[in-house]
Order: sequence, then structure tokens, then C-alpha cells
Amino acid sequence: MGAGHSTPCSLSLPTTVGFATAATAFPINKLKSPFNPTNRFCNTHFRLPFKTAIENQLSNSTLRVVKCGGSSTVEEIKTQEEIGVKNPMAHPHSLDQELLEQLVYDALVWSSLRGLVVGDRSVQRSGTVPGVGMVHAPFTLLPLSFPESHYRQACELAPIFNELVDRVSLDGNFLQDSLSRTKKVDPFTSRLLEIHSKMLEIDKKEEIRLGLHRSDYMLDEQTNMLLQIELNTISSSFPGLSSLVSELHRSLLDQYRERLKLDSEKIPRNSAVSCFAEALAKAWTQYDNPRAVVLIVVQSEERNMYDQHWLCTLLKERYPFCHAYKLIYIRIQQYRKVFISKQCKSVSLEKHFFNVFRCFPQLINTHNVTVVRKTLTEIDAQGELLPDGTLIVGGKEVAIVYFRAGYSPTDYPSELEWGARLLMEQSSAIKCPSISYHLAGTKKIQQELAKPNVLERFLENEEDIAKVRRCFAGLWSLDDVEVVKDVISRPELYVMKPQREGGGNNIYGDDVRKTLQRLQSEGTEEDAAFILMQRIFPTITPTILMRDGIFYKEDAVSELGIYGAYLRNKEKVLVNDQCGYLMRTKVSSSNEGGVAAGFAVLDSIYLD
Amino acid sequence: MGAGHSTPCSLSLPTTVGFATAATAFPINKLKSPFNPTNRFCNTHFRLPFKTAIENQLSNSTLRVVKCGGSSTVEEIKTQEEIGVKNPMAHPHSLDQELLEQLVYDALVWSSLRGLVVGDRSVQRSGTVPGVGMVHAPFTLLPLSFPESHYRQACELAPIFNELVDRVSLDGNFLQDSLSRTKKVDPFTSRLLEIHSKMLEIDKKEEIRLGLHRSDYMLDEQTNMLLQIELNTISSSFPGLSSLVSELHRSLLDQYRERLKLDSEKIPRNSAVSCFAEALAKAWTQYDNPRAVVLIVVQSEERNMYDQHWLCTLLKERYPFCHAYKLIYIRIQQYRKVFISKQCKSVSLEKHFFNVFRCFPQLINTHNVTVVRKTLTEIDAQGELLPDGTLIVGGKEVAIVYFRAGYSPTDYPSELEWGARLLMEQSSAIKCPSISYHLAGTKKIQQELAKPNVLERFLENEEDIAKVRRCFAGLWSLDDVEVVKDVISRPELYVMKPQREGGGNNIYGDDVRKTLQRLQSEGTEEDAAFILMQRIFPTITPTILMRDGIFYKEDAVSELGIYGAYLRNKEKVLVNDQCGYLMRTKVSSSNEGGVAAGFAVLDSIYLD
Repeated sequence: MGAGHSTPCSLSLPTTVGFATAATAFPINKLKSPFNPTNRFCNTHFRLPFKTAIENQLSNSTLRVVKCGGSSTVEEIKTQEEIGVKNPMAHPHSLDQELLEQLVYDALVWSSLRGLVVGDRSVQRSGTVPGVGMVHAPFTLLPLSFPESHYRQACELAPIFNELVDRVSLDGNFLQDSLSRTKKVDPFTSRLLEIHSKMLEIDKKEEIRLGLHRSDYMLDEQTNMLLQIELNTISSSFPGLSSLVSELHRSLLDQYRERLKLDSEKIPRNSAVSCFAEALAKAWTQYDNPRAVVLIVVQSEERNMYDQHWLCTLLKERYPFCHAYKLIYIRIQQYRKVFISKQCKSVSLEKHFFNVFRCFPQLINTHNVTVVRKTLTEIDAQGELLPDGTLIVGGKEVAIVYFRAGYSPTDYPSELEWGARLLMEQSSAIKCPSISYHLAGTKKIQQELAKPNVLERFLENEEDIAKVRRCFAGLWSLDDVEVVKDVISRPELYVMKPQREGGGNNIYGDDVRKTLQRLQSEGTEEDAAFILMQRIFPTITPTILMRDGIFYKEDAVSELGIYGAYLRNKEKVLVNDQCGYLMRTKVSSSNEGGVAAGFAVLDSIYLD
Repeated sequence: MGAGHSTPCSLSLPTTVGFATAATAFPINKLKSPFNPTNRFCNTHFRLPFKTAIENQLSNSTLRVVKCGGSSTVEEIKTQEEIGVKNPMAHPHSLDQELLEQLVYDALVWSSLRGLVVGDRSVQRSGTVPGVGMVHAPFTLLPLSFPESHYRQACELAPIFNELVDRVSLDGNFLQDSLSRTKKVDPFTSRLLEIHSKMLEIDKKEEIRLGLHRSDYMLDEQTNMLLQIELNTISSSFPGLSSLVSELHRSLLDQYRERLKLDSEKIPRNSAVSCFAEALAKAWTQYDNPRAVVLIVVQSEERNMYDQHWLCTLLKERYPFCHAYKLIYIRIQQYRKVFISKQCKSVSLEKHFFNVFRCFPQLINTHNVTVVRKTLTEIDAQGELLPDGTLIVGGKEVAIVYFRAGYSPTDYPSELEWGARLLMEQSSAIKCPSISYHLAGTKKIQQELAKPNVLERFLENEEDIAKVRRCFAGLWSLDDVEVVKDVISRPELYVMKPQREGGGNNIYGDDVRKTLQRLQSEGTEEDAAFILMQRIFPTITPTILMRDGIFYKEDAVSELGIYGAYLRNKEKVLVNDQCGYLMRTKVSSSNEGGVAAGFAVLDSIYLD
């Protein structure tokens, strides 16, 4: 299977989560254990609780199992290579059957209890009513071994891409010009550009800009290079479920430590969902109205609703201070006398708002952030724009419009939905993404950015530019005569990608040649609807996939997505973070006889 | 609907959980808030983190919402009575439709993400494969208002009943004599007694005795008395899911604090599942072999498997120290030199084993407790008894046999299953319950204990005796001529209960009279298969029940179960606790036209 696919929701998966322990970015083995077995063996400063602290220490240490026998000193455990144990990740198909069945059972139980679930397409209401027709999300039984250097490379790129999207979004002419030919042949892009033009006409400024992106990569086997597949700037899915899958794998590795001989700490903690929730909460605070809601634009049927619900749940449960924070300012007048007469008189409110809570705990939770889910059709019916630009939907002021729909033509069955999109774009609500962020993530822009000297228009730092350029695969438009000639002679080395979202629309192999020749003979401008991309050949690895409670031994290829969150206001950048990751593993198409050919599942990574 | 039903699994529910926050017993409003608004308003000793500490403080305080307006001082919020708001628990059917729909949606999302799930009977593999065909467990949308005094009364009874069961179990003759007539007509009880006899013959002692019980009560409306329905000593179900439902209701009350005007702290924290897990872990430690497993005896199909999985998950995840604890003793020889040469030399291992972990974190998780699930049929095939009494099942030594099956004749389709039960009973594994604990929970014994001067045989403390007696409903055997005469004239005031588990077998109303008359005319000993019980008439309250993603406004009655955990060894009692609660609400049979007539759902209580 080649490269080039993966839309915001291109998995046949639906999805959910983001869990308690997924809290920090980049924690992977960076912290040295205070339990250095040689010189600080008895660290009495170490404090409980167990599960978090001790276990982390433990798993960072190589000192784990002490050989039984006559020895009276502590010895280091031998690595699996040393003791000749087959690495179960590299050879999952030869796992002992009893162990395999235990792992499968425990993994299924874990996902059921922890909300690693999706709607079951065989159950009628599973895409509309939560709690009905749930099935565990498809996942791999074990994490995928992945080179740490490439993982770090991808993580480092996240803040640069965050910044790049923001810069590109501000250059309205660049977007319009780059997409001008695409516009003529791709009606969907054309509609987006139309809205974008209107915003340029009225000189609409987005002062608070929120980006929740995901950049997808594959590791090319031959060149050993990490190459970008695409950058999602709208509806980056699976922050919730991907966080959970990392936890699932960590839990299995812990529980079967003795038998698997793998170290759970080598699976990076996945903060995707908490990081997204935090960025949303901060943006909400920036909007500065405690009564305003977060509007999630959804599809009318969504089997991946639990992925979205996890994000909303974290937003509501974990960031009450953001909600109360605003209330304090509103009510501070009422409290001033009491406040000053008590012990807190010297406190600066802005800087030390935690102290405010100590004095006024009753403020917390008097108001939670409210999350509202609506389809574009509903927004059209219930939405209105006040003269000052305030967006009202269903009678409620909207602080943030967070799109988990609207990236595909099918989300706009009529003019009503385009009306809703325009209405929101015109408003002063924070859009995630704005129309220009959305356009900055199109494949055509990706291809334009890969042209010589284009990155330099948007980024200053040469190192950053080099890093970004290094992850670009070969990208060309169809008017590049030399390249097209080469494609026709060696089509197996290229992929043709339409603007359409969804890897299913990509063209591979001999079809590339045929399509190119047809386009040439027709002489229309339809070629502008496509870009050409170097075909990436990732390593095919044996894996065990789980779907519908059944495990499949398959050969598969994987794609790494790195989430990024970006938030800025008029003055400054408030958030520019790498936010966890998504690993997706897909049955290799070279394995067409496979039972589960073609389906993609959630995975995590084990750093080598 | 009258009293008298409820088996260990009599709900049409399956079930699951037991959650992170469900950690302490009896926390209900016992703690006074340090935020006394009048004299300690700014308590600088108060410490974060927020979610737990501040919110608890907040909800304990009546000072919550400050009226907006000119006032510059802090005012106490008016109660809902004062401001004329209808209590939404007392009048759930008149909840505002928009609020109702939001509550319903959020409750469904919460249960999906938090594992408040059961197997969906309409999906084929939902009772055998975890993660497949899940649906939210049926529950009430809001908690049930319940008098605090009666709740406390029920809680206080738990340790007394724990002790009582233990004492009764030791009196083999009492069990045999009391059940001698039942034995003749009830083949199931007869088989249990047969095993019990064999144990008496070989003078089998259970030195470590573990009880995980649940005593069920109803509140009789007319007398305002809390009366015991039955005492479950085997397979007390729903510790997991009941813990979760309390958390669900707390979460809804927090989130809709402004609109519902209810205080989530008035829902007692439900520690059922963590408390059961702790008792199992302690029993496992008592067995004193770190390699021995916990064997869960299960039915071959179990839609309530998630309730069981929560318990096992907590056992495995939350009590690693118990597991490692044993390993330390085994390996201590190896460590002694290091141990003594380091800072821990003065530590007494037995008393301060926490310190051991500080010094030897690598011991934790080198061995998890292993939980194995088997049906009685499988145990028959895979089980063996070593000459020293050790129970081996599937090649593994068994420390604890925990029954979540085996309470019903249908669990013993052939002699094989009875063989398995006998095998386990003969072994030195800890049985939860042992055959005598099982028998001590039969209805006949309940009725015998209600006879004058019987409690005095087992309990010394007069106060305890009085407390227990106060919760006994009228209980009679069918050879009580006076009572039978009364029953025939006023059958509506009685229930006839067979030894059979399951409320569905109880006889009510005119059927009681007919059955009694038939038994009298036949003159057989079949009457010994039944007991007579005073019919309890609990208050009928309006409620909103959720099932299959749909809400139903119904009139319902409720039953309160209080969990108890008991563990002792040869020397002393190690655990004797009340452990959270189960509230079940069932559509009142007087409401036969109701859409959902006859189904019971999980509930929680709101203390008045």
C-alpha cells in the first residue's frame, strides 16, 4: 500500500477518549529515575502514591526482576536480546497462544471499561444516540516499534507547522492564487474560496486564532525518511481514542511485564486529548464571556462520537477554573469589600487568581462551560448574527465553533449548510478552524509550499525551514511536464491525489498513467483538481489487529499523526504545542488474501 | 409491587464498574466545611487540587451562588423551598423538557465513557465476548431521595450481619437442622446440604473466611420502618456498577448545579467495588502464595460481566502492593545485605512495608495477582485437588474461589458441576462463600433467625441483637397454623417465597391463598420449600428510568442493598466493613400500563 490518504476521519473507525494519566507532553524517558540502583538505592524522599510515582520510576529503571538463586545483591535484568526472548512486537504472530488469548481478553475488557469505544455500524441508532450499540474501537494488540529519532523529529515539527499554518492563513492572496486553478475544477474548494474571498472583501480579521491540527507521516523504508502525508487543519480526529490506546498498551505491558519483557515507559504518554481540551479552554477564556458556549459542528450520524465526547468531557471536567475565572471578574465588585477585609488583601487578582479561589471557593462550578452539538443544517436553522458580530445559535452566544464536520462536500447537501458556514465565518466567534486555516491545510497548498523558496515567505528561522523541507515528499502539480513524463513511464512510484478528502480517492499504479493520459487527451483543466506525490513505501510489519472482539494476524503498514495546538490573540502566541500522537495501522494491500484487508485500526508506538 | 424478591442477580440488568473517586466509606457530610462563611472565610490553609478538595468544600457549604445586584456582601443561597423551586427529584416528571434532554444526553455519554455498561441482549456475543454489543446499564436519571437516618441504620447493620453470618456458618448443626425439612422438598438446597454434611464429616475447618455480602432492604411506607428483604451471601452483584451510578449522579448534579439546585455531596460516595477489591486482596495476601490465582466462578453467558470486570480490574490495578508484599518476603533473603547497608536498616519489615517499597520499587508489578474466570463445567474438567488440599485449576494454584455463579440450580446442569463445587469446597482455597456461608444466606435461615431467642445464640451484644431484630419483617414457616389462617383471610398482606433465588418466583395476592390451600389439601411436605413473609409496601415515587438510550417517566419503588465485607483468619477479624450500597428502582406493578413496567434499574440515593 502506498502513501497518500488519511482524511480527518478516513479510518473506517469511529472513536473516543483521552485519559486521566495522559497529561504531559514529551515525557518519554526524558526524566531520569531517581532510583539509580547503584548510588541512590534507598531514596527516602520518594513519596507515594504508588501507581503513578513508583511505577513510573520502576519502569524507567532497567532494574526490575531479580534473578532468584543464591545471589544476595540486586542484579540488573537482562534485556530480551540477551536472554534470547523473541521480541513479541517484532514477532507477534508467534506469540504463545495462551498468552495471546489472555492479552486479547484483557485488552477487550480494558477498552470496554475505559470508553475506548465506537458506534457499531450494525446497530441502528449507534451513530445518533450515545450509550447504544457500542463496540470496542478497533486497535492493535501491541504497540508498534518505532524509531525514537523519527518520533522526535515529527514532534519537533508540530510547533513549526502550527506557526506555518498561521502565517499562511494571513496571506489571503497566496491562498487565492495558489488555489485559483483548483477552484475552476473543484466545486468544493471553490465554495470555500468564495467564503474566503468574502472575508477578504470585508477585511475580516481573526484576532483570536485557534488551530487544532494533525500532521500525518509515513516512514519510507528505502530512504529511512519520515515523510509528510498531509496536514489536517480541520476536524483532526482521534485525539481522545488515540490517548486511550496508548494507555491500553501501557497497561498490557505492565500487566504482562514478566512474559512480554517490554517496558511500558517506552510508549510515550499521549496527551492529545487533554492538550486539545486545554487549548479549547484557553481559547474560551480569551473570548471573555462566561455564558458563551462551545459549539461543536457535527455530522448528523457519527459513530466516532465518543472520541468527540472525551474531548468535551475533559473540557468540562478538567478546566473548571477557566470557567470560574471569568465569573470572578464579573462578580469581583460584589466581593471587593469582603475580599479586602480578609487575609487576601495584598493579592493581585490577575496574577494570583488561584488565591481568589481559596477565598471564594463558592465561585467554582457555579458555571460550567457548556458544549453544544449541532449539524450545519441545524446551525442554519437556529443561527443568527447580531450586528456586533456575535454569533447566536439556539439562543446561546457562541465563543468557539469547533468543526468535527464541514471538511467534506457531503457535509453540505444544500445551500443551507453553506449559509451556515458563511454565517459562522462572518461572526466574531473563534473558529477552529477559520476558513483560511481550513484552506491552508489543502493538498494544493501543501504542494505549493513544497516549491522552492515558498516556505521562506512564511518562516524566518532557517533551521525550521530545513526541518520542514526535510519531511516533504516529492510534490508536483500536473502542469509539470517533466514530472508527468516520468510518472507515465514509472507510475508505480507516484500517487495522484484529488482535493477530495479521503484516501479512498487516491489513484495508484497503472491507474495513475491512465488518468494522466486521459486528462492530457481531454485537454480540460480537470488536471488542476489533482496533485502528484512521491509514493511512500513504508515498512510492512506483522501485527495483530482487533476488531469486533476478534483478533487477526496480519501484515500491516502504519502512519504516524502528530497533533498540534496553537492559540494566539492580538498580542501574542498563547499556545504552540505538540500534543500527543495518533498511530494508525492498516492491513497492507499487498496482503489481499488477509481476512481483514483494508481496515485501519488505532495503534501506539514503542520507542526503539 | 410488594416486597420479597431480588436474587444476587435478579435484575434484568447486566452490569460493571467501581470508580476512581469511590474510595471511602461513609463520607456523607460528616466532614464540616472549613469554609464557615461567617468566621473563616479566607482559609489560607486550604490547598488545591481543585476538583476534589475545593468542590467538596463548595458543595458542603450552603454558600454557593451569590445573588447578583447591589449587595456587596456575600449572601447565603436560598434553599429550593425558600425560592419556590420544585425539587426535581420529587417531581422529575415535570422537569423542563430542554433540561431533561440535556441530562439524558449527558448521562448517556457519561456511562459510555466510564464503563457503566452491560451486554446488550439483542447482540449475540454480548454475554461471552467483552467489548462487543455493549449498551449503557439501565439507570435512573436522578438519585432517589432517601432518609439519612434509615440509610445510617442500614449501614450500621452491615458489620453485625457480617459477624452473624460468620457465627451461623460455624454452627453446622443449626444449619442442618433448620434446613432439614426444606431438604426433603428442595433438591437444590438438598445438594448444598449434602456438600455441607460431607464437610462436617471430615471436620473441614475454614480458617480464613471471606464474606462479600449484600443485605437488601425496603422502606415500608406505612410503618416507616426499614425492613430486610434478604441477605445475599453468594454472588452479591453490582458492586461495580452501583459505584459508578453514584458517580454518574454526582457528576450530573455538579454539572447542572445551577438549574437543579441539588447538592452532589448528599449522594454518599459509593465505595462498594474498591472495598470488595480490597477485601479480596487482603484475603489473597492471607493465603500467602504470590503465584496463586483468584478464580472467579462465572456463568457461561454473562451480560453483567462488566460489573465483575470492574472488580477484577480494581483488584489488579489498585492493590499492587498486596501482590508485591508477598514477593518481598520470598526475596528478602536476597536483599538483606543491600537493605541493611542502606538507609532503611532500622525499618521493621512487618510494620512498615511501605518503606520496603520505597527502597525496592522494582518489586512492584513484577507480579500481578492473576484472575481466572471459569464456569463450573470448566472447573470440573480442569480442576484437581492435591493431597495437601491445594486446589489446582488449569495448572494454577487457586488462592480464592469467588463465586459469581453457583447460586442457582441452572448453574448445575449435570453432576459435573456439583463435582466441581465439592472439589473446591474440599480444598484449602479460600471460598467466597464457603458452603456454610452460602447456606447461612438462605431464606429458611433468615426465617429461623427471626424466631424468638435464635439471634441470641449467635450474637452477644444486646444492642446489636435489637438492631438486627428491628429490621426483620414478619417471617414465618408454613407450619405456623395461626399465621396460615390469617394469610388465607388476608393474602394481600403476605408474600410466599420459595428457596429458589429470583424475585420472579415469589407468590403474591390471591395466589398466596390458592397455593396455601392447594398445599394443605395435598398434604405433602412441599410446604417446607416456602416461607411466608410480611408484604412490604414501599413508597411509590415518580422517577425517570433510562434503558436502551430511551427515557421513561414512570412510578417506581426502590430497594436499598448495603454491601458488607468480612475477612478473618485463625487469630482475628481482619476486615468487617460496610462497603457502599446498591439502590435499585423498579417500575411499580400498580403502574401496569407503563411502557417499562417490570424492569429494574440502578439508582443512587440523595440523603434527606
